[in-house]
Amino acid sequence: MASYKLVYFNVMGLGEPIRFLLSYGGVEFEDVRITYSSEDWSNMKPTTPFGQLPTLEINGKVYSQTLPICRYLAKQFNLLGKTDLDTLQIDAIASALYDFRWLTYYRESDPVLKAKKKVDVMTRVIPFYLNKLEELAKNNGGYLHGDKLSYADLFFVGISDSLNTAYESDITNDKPYLKSLKQKVLAIPNIKAWVEKRPKLEF
Amino acid sequence: MASYKLVYFNVMGLGEPIRFLLSYGGVEFEDVRITYSSEDWSNMKPTTPFGQLPTLEINGKVYSQTLPICRYLAKQFNLLGKTDLDTLQIDAIASALYDFRWLTYYRESDPVLKAKKKVDVMTRVIPFYLNKLEELAKNNGGYLHGDKLSYADLFFVGISDSLNTAYESDITNDKPYLKSLKQKVLAIPNIKAWVEKRPKLEF
Repeated sequence: MASYKLVYFNVMGLGEPIRFLLSYGGVEFEDVRITYSSEDWSNMKPTTPFGQLPTLEINGKVYSQTLPICRYLAKQFNLLGKTDLDTLQIDAIASALYDFRWLTYYRESDPVLKAKKKVDVMTRVIPFYLNKLEELAKNNGGYLHGDKLSYADLFFVGISDSLNTAYESDITNDKPYLKSLKQKVLAIPNIKAWVEKRPKLEF
Repeated sequence: MASYKLVYFNVMGLGEPIRFLLSYGGVEFEDVRITYSSEDWSNMKPTTPFGQLPTLEINGKVYSQTLPICRYLAKQFNLLGKTDLDTLQIDAIASALYDFRWLTYYRESDPVLKAKKKVDVMTRVIPFYLNKLEELAKNNGGYLHGDKLSYADLFFVGISDSLNTAYESDITNDKPYLKSLKQKVLAIPNIKAWVEKRPKLEF
């Protein structure tokens, strides 16, 4: 059996979809958590493939980039599509969710610009994305694609708590299909066990 | 044979790696170019899967997100890795190149902040990425992974002209392995024919 070591910061963030996938797959993994502001990270940064975390060590070899890692694990755990075109659609949804997290304001340092961005993000950007996602869940039997569980669903639920904190509201509010999807994913025994034992964090 | 319609703005940007892949594969494609500031785009935006371009219509069905589209085409044209782990590494390189374009300053509206960001990007961020990529090309027989052509190589060369413009210098300067990789890719007959006939643009 392969050995897995995830290295990320001590937040849910982009690490959490990977932790969801590893948990779903029922594999053991080392869950290494680095403090962003620490010397550990400034020493480690130049040694990572592209200066970023998360990385996943698989049998001792380091791989980087969140979505490629998720996609690799999805293939191992049978969470891609039936056809290449189904998989393209699943990849596109995961990729949109990955982009989605950037469409935010909380990294903005100028307080005036931050307030302005926040209004735009809250009233225009987030509702637009969430409506698109809700529509997908509605039209795909309660999943984001193909009437069955895929890694896009695990990515969505894995990243949703960080997004809730960032956006200061539950992103599944008034979105019955997304809410039900989240409940379904959180009820998967391996995911449920992970969520119960994971560190309790805001982001 | 599948029919392909690419919809993007009238720039190279994220559309160009897709155009490279379609050209490499030797398939016909409709190359629709929308003016960003036009009414066409503001009308079209809400109808796209996630409010963004590029999209690729395959046999009349619309798919979105640059990397998933590239990866789908890469699979059709045999440009993924030998093993799933090779493909993970190829995906990670393409994904890093995709992130790379964001690490920039030219979208910054505040001129003081823009100048400050520019110094950081030019002296720290870009050299870091380019050194990592040069190292990969050096250690992989002149390709970014696995001693053979993959879609990561086409992605790199496809996006390189836009990056050159954005960063105000040839990103392959003093990078002999990347320069040679670019020459190799541009010498592929289908790519050469595309580059000769494509609209001549800065970005």
